[in-house]
Amino acid sequence: MPASPIGPELQRLIDLLAKLPGLGPRSAKRAALYLLKKREPVMQPLAFALSDAADKVTGCSECGNWDSIDPCAVCVDEERDRSVLCVVEDVSGLWALERAGAHKGLYHVLGGLLSPLDGVGPDDLTIGRLIERTKTDEVKEVVIALAATVDGQTTAHYLMEHLESADLRVTRLSQGVPVGGELDYLDEGTLAAAMKTRRPV
Amino acid sequence: MPASPIGPELQRLIDLLAKLPGLGPRSAKRAALYLLKKREPVMQPLAFALSDAADKVTGCSECGNWDSIDPCAVCVDEERDRSVLCVVEDVSGLWALERAGAHKGLYHVLGGLLSPLDGVGPDDLTIGRLIERTKTDEVKEVVIALAATVDGQTTAHYLMEHLESADLRVTRLSQGVPVGGELDYLDEGTLAAAMKTRRPV
Repeated sequence: MPASPIGPELQRLIDLLAKLPGLGPRSAKRAALYLLKKREPVMQPLAFALSDAADKVTGCSECGNWDSIDPCAVCVDEERDRSVLCVVEDVSGLWALERAGAHKGLYHVLGGLLSPLDGVGPDDLTIGRLIERTKTDEVKEVVIALAATVDGQTTAHYLMEHLESADLRVTRLSQGVPVGGELDYLDEGTLAAAMKTRRPV
Repeated sequence: MPASPIGPELQRLIDLLAKLPGLGPRSAKRAALYLLKKREPVMQPLAFALSDAADKVTGCSECGNWDSIDPCAVCVDEERDRSVLCVVEDVSGLWALERAGAHKGLYHVLGGLLSPLDGVGPDDLTIGRLIERTKTDEVKEVVIALAATVDGQTTAHYLMEHLESADLRVTRLSQGVPVGGELDYLDEGTLAAAMKTRRPV
């Protein structure tokens, strides 16, 4: 067998790039060739940005968001409504809600969902810390913003049970027809839920 | 407006990742979150692999392949047939032919295609070096393996004209029905070319 046309340094780079979600072995090769052509403007800055972020970015000790300051920029933002905590599975959910401008309060990142089958229990998530945070007088409402999947709903129910208290309002995102969604393309579960929770116009 | 939930270090990483072919702004965010969760096994090694490859990988002075040794592993491989040079547009073509095990000779990477509209002329490519390489007694055949596009065909014709000599065979990849290809899904140009160059079975 002839020697591989790809040297060890390049092969290692391709193998690591291929681990990124959204890139496979073939697109990792394309990405590596692109980077070699753009050494100064992209490849070297990316190497630096990776090691810089790996060094500096940590989980916020308050909410679990990733940031280079602790507490994170969201938690220290004076403009935000400190009486509402929005519970998300992970940081991508926080970013999605921020992108939508849908929440002006603070967040709490659970770090996953309860999943008995995968052996993920309450102690593997930041549920204890969430309960602690809600015990201050400041917090009046917890919005549960978890995925509408089995694990998401299991986790939501667990949270509702454990957050129950006289002076705390616990809410969740409503389910229904997405804005711009055609009824014909929606699954039956969503349509049934939207009908059940129909509202007067 | 509230502060961005994404700090500057993280934002810079996302912006650089989004430049990779195959990743957009949204998948770059997903990739960044993945990397932050996999700091030890992926993020730090990737930072190292990037700067290591940026330092060590150069274009082979013989054929133009990327490698950390010069001449590259393909050019120094004693097992290869030094009488056949295969001309490719870029290194991805070389890798594709190697993956297929389709060529046992050496390569020549042009570094692009002639494109009068984009101002790419013969001097912007390694055509001079190719002609020089074919002038040794060793080289008996040049296989032109360029894309079947307008620029690819223009470049192929230019090469054929300039490589013409009594003791050099110039060939090109044949065009036709891809292996496993359904006739119904093929474009008319390919079908017409396959019919025109039909062969006895």
